Amino acid sequence: MSPTVFIVSDGTGITAETFAHSILSQFDQKFRLVRVPFIDSTDKAYSTAEKINEAAVHEGRRPIVFTTLVDSNSNEILKRSNALVLDMFQTFVEPLEQELELKSSHAMGRGHQNADTDEYKNRIEAINFSLAHDDGQSDRNLNDADVILVGVSRSGKTPTSLYLAMQYGVKAANYPLIPDDFERGKLPNSLLPYRGKIFGLSIDPQRLTEIRNERRPGSKYAALENCRYEVNEAEAMMRRENIKWLSSTHKSIEEIATTILQEIRLDKPVY
Amino acid sequence: MSPTVFIVSDGTGITAETFAHSILSQFDQKFRLVRVPFIDSTDKAYSTAEKINEAAVHEGRRPIVFTTLVDSNSNEILKRSNALVLDMFQTFVEPLEQELELKSSHAMGRGHQNADTDEYKNRIEAINFSLAHDDGQSDRNLNDADVILVGVSRSGKTPTSLYLAMQYGVKAANYPLIPDDFERGKLPNSLLPYRGKIFGLSIDPQRLTEIRNERRPGSKYAALENCRYEVNEAEAMMRRENIKWLSSTHKSIEEIATTILQEIRLDKPVY
Repeated sequence: MSPTVFIVSDGTGITAETFAHSILSQFDQKFRLVRVPFIDSTDKAYSTAEKINEAAVHEGRRPIVFTTLVDSNSNEILKRSNALVLDMFQTFVEPLEQELELKSSHAMGRGHQNADTDEYKNRIEAINFSLAHDDGQSDRNLNDADVILVGVSRSGKTPTSLYLAMQYGVKAANYPLIPDDFERGKLPNSLLPYRGKIFGLSIDPQRLTEIRNERRPGSKYAALENCRYEVNEAEAMMRRENIKWLSSTHKSIEEIATTILQEIRLDKPVY
Repeated sequence: MSPTVFIVSDGTGITAETFAHSILSQFDQKFRLVRVPFIDSTDKAYSTAEKINEAAVHEGRRPIVFTTLVDSNSNEILKRSNALVLDMFQTFVEPLEQELELKSSHAMGRGHQNADTDEYKNRIEAINFSLAHDDGQSDRNLNDADVILVGVSRSGKTPTSLYLAMQYGVKAANYPLIPDDFERGKLPNSLLPYRGKIFGLSIDPQRLTEIRNERRPGSKYAALENCRYEVNEAEAMMRRENIKWLSSTHKSIEEIATTILQEIRLDKPVY
């Protein structure tokens, strides 16, 4: 039976779960992850500890618990349960307190996931912007875009734009490069004023034909020959126009987004 | 001057940055965050250590470094730099190795952000599904939806659907409740077969009028009286139809998504 892993948080526990997942993936072992969010009172901490103890009895081994509770009382309650408790919060807060010669506030809900902050409002605004400027739908307010992604249809522009908006509040428009553009041998006119913030995505033609065939099986659009043509033309255009680009073939949206943020220097610079 | 915080990862460092952010937000102190992604060789580790040492000299205090490097050699290089190095990885891997009586693999790129996994492909597929089923755009394949969000226009359905798809591979359709539905006193017909997977979002009318006024200032659509009417009718309908719902007014998309996952039990159950 897979060991049970509880992720206990006073917020959503999403970050802690993702982090726990990446640590656990280092073991050749399956785990059963149970996220326990919104534990924002000692009462809830007690009932979580009970759940953990029950799991220990039921499974005949003590569970693993990742906690990010900031309230020390609740955290202590958890630590008395029959489990390996890994405290992702206090473990790092203590050395930081010493280093900074400051006490931490132990206040809940201070992360970027708080809905009542300007940062959060920017993220929602950016999502709306990116949706309105998906797939070249609108040329309006392109001036406000932080980045404009270009590339052939199905090269990964849409998920990347939405991810940039959702996670970073980056207003990411995206614009397809289509055969018309290749025949004219020029970027779409509406993009010309914004050359400086264009970033390209390309993709291996073999992978592209697979993706397009899922959507429109047997079409000319999806044919390998056509995919080769479009990708060649798009890459030639990006080179000619001095547009930075990357291949999305084996990259996740997180990896693509991270590279783009570095390239367009929206990330905080080192100096 | 704000202390500099480096986040060093062999992957994107996104999870580590989010996590570091939530820890640092516990201090009444501003920080300058520098994410250093893709450190997947000892050469890159050396040049990162140099950068850290330069920052120490330049700023007259040693920086704070969060590392999630899985390669022990690279990690050792970083730890010899002039910084408070907080090892988010090894700190938890070691007690886990003891508990599980297993060695960890120290393999890079094992997280959910790897583009060549089925989990990743599901996420992309879910994003496409959620986009195609945004705002009631399509009734096709609603059968495939994991959840269908309903609510008045601008109650938060779209960002929540996209978030569920992007982070969890949940196929989330969304459908607006509009005055026509209220006059008929019934859910839209196309939703009737899927009652079991409908989840509602509501919102405070005062907040709704603010949001709508940003989009269409001075319109009837945005007027407080109309917002009150729509919200009342929508809540009455959801009660009548036995649809679970929550108010999105002070909730982030992460919080809304977490609640929905719990309610529709897509999250892994405790037993």
